[in-house]
Amino acid sequence: MNDLPLNDDSLPSLPPSAVSRQVVRMRGGTLQSLQDSMVNEVPIALVYNEISHAVMMATPDDLEDFALGFSLSEGIIEKPGECYGIDVVNGADGVEVQVEIASGAFMRLKERRRSLTGRTGCGLCGVDSLQQVCRPLAPLAPSQGFHTAGVRAALGAIGARQQLTRLTGAAHAAAWCGMDGDLRVVREDVGRHNALDKVIGAMARSAANPRDGFLLITSRVSFEMAQKAISAGVAALVGMSAPTLAAVELADAAGMTLLAFARGADFVCYTHPQHLLGLENDGA
Amino acid sequence: MNDLPLNDDSLPSLPPSAVSRQVVRMRGGTLQSLQDSMVNEVPIALVYNEISHAVMMATPDDLEDFALGFSLSEGIIEKPGECYGIDVVNGADGVEVQVEIASGAFMRLKERRRSLTGRTGCGLCGVDSLQQVCRPLAPLAPSQGFHTAGVRAALGAIGARQQLTRLTGAAHAAAWCGMDGDLRVVREDVGRHNALDKVIGAMARSAANPRDGFLLITSRVSFEMAQKAISAGVAALVGMSAPTLAAVELADAAGMTLLAFARGADFVCYTHPQHLLGLENDGA
Repeated sequence: MNDLPLNDDSLPSLPPSAVSRQVVRMRGGTLQSLQDSMVNEVPIALVYNEISHAVMMATPDDLEDFALGFSLSEGIIEKPGECYGIDVVNGADGVEVQVEIASGAFMRLKERRRSLTGRTGCGLCGVDSLQQVCRPLAPLAPSQGFHTAGVRAALGAIGARQQLTRLTGAAHAAAWCGMDGDLRVVREDVGRHNALDKVIGAMARSAANPRDGFLLITSRVSFEMAQKAISAGVAALVGMSAPTLAAVELADAAGMTLLAFARGADFVCYTHPQHLLGLENDGA
Repeated sequence: MNDLPLNDDSLPSLPPSAVSRQVVRMRGGTLQSLQDSMVNEVPIALVYNEISHAVMMATPDDLEDFALGFSLSEGIIEKPGECYGIDVVNGADGVEVQVEIASGAFMRLKERRRSLTGRTGCGLCGVDSLQQVCRPLAPLAPSQGFHTAGVRAALGAIGARQQLTRLTGAAHAAAWCGMDGDLRVVREDVGRHNALDKVIGAMARSAANPRDGFLLITSRVSFEMAQKAISAGVAALVGMSAPTLAAVELADAAGMTLLAFARGADFVCYTHPQHLLGLENDGA
């Protein structure tokens, strides 16, 4: 989506993604006053066709990717072409991301909002009763399988790309990886959902074929992370930490291979191991 | 709140907090099929006076604590006495926690819901525009100070109490600790916000004096974690992982001491170090 009309004029005034402050550190019995870098977490309002829709605490980097990815992974738009433009505006009250979407998508969004009874859930966007939890996801195309050597390569490379994590110790990363493990897009955020949405947005903007690689996340694999990955249409989701049962069941039903506890050459495969290739050559 | 009329009849039918499944593990170059325990994460609907209000993905343990803590830390009720009863019901669609609250609190809740325009944010409950982000918090009573030896003791003891984490690797814990570091209440959940709400609910039920100890969380310290701790009225919040800038600024303004990166005898104090006592004796 290189043709998205981004308003880059507003970008220089965004808050920084990390800020340094004076702290008191106790380490090894020694007390010391020093400067420490903290990740920034600011309220980001997503405004669709001038209607304020949601506010997320997020790190103020790559907000166009975030808005596009959130719109796609939450089903507000069905394809990137339904997004006509994204403006990032740093106003007096905070950062607004103004998204212009096609009138059909906006009608659906207004309908969705009308049908809700008010304040809704944490963790499950826009859900205030149990009937709404599992939104339908398009079935995944059959997997071509993928080599675990690519997973190992991506795991070996991602640390060097986690700049915000190295600086602050408080960010999650998500990456869109080619089958051979090359890190095509890496995004970071204080929230793991946001980091994944940023990657999904960047994938859409680069017109990536989602069957052509996998998503890697440095965090746990929860229900919503699996839901976002399935909605992005990737062949596999690889998490560096633990999965939840709900994520495993969702990935299982959708036909997505789910690896977790992935570190170095080690991993646990929770769903669809039949798609893993090259296992016989994976000796440590 | 030992007199809360809990409906214990419904509890045995709740889903388990951890479930074992067959997985394929690659470790040290060896592929093995084995059983692995995963934390359960189920949609929990919070229903106030028969109105469905929010759905959270949470671990189905200690749901009465969760409902009471959420109600308090989100300002739905102002004090535990405004909660008249909590019923946990495992229905066909999932788990409902039915909370009966005082009519005044319910009127305020209905008013809040009416003023919202529909679907709201992830991460910031019930917020869909930037003006709503910072809800007013009651000022904290002056701190009596607290000894870092208590923090060290709590950090040394918490691991043994994290049963779900040991089993699944995917849970967060929160603890209400006395000043000497004794772990008075420990709760676990797949979500760190939920774990903290469960502890705040349990504190309220035990009629604890919040100035009489501190909260320990095994996770990062984000804006909302600081907000919940301040609303609970504790003297300090101790996080084992990193804080965000927004959390630090909120704790600073509220007068709450915030420690993070707390491991063993080490920590970083981000706000109000003047309340730390016993530092000269804290040699490793």
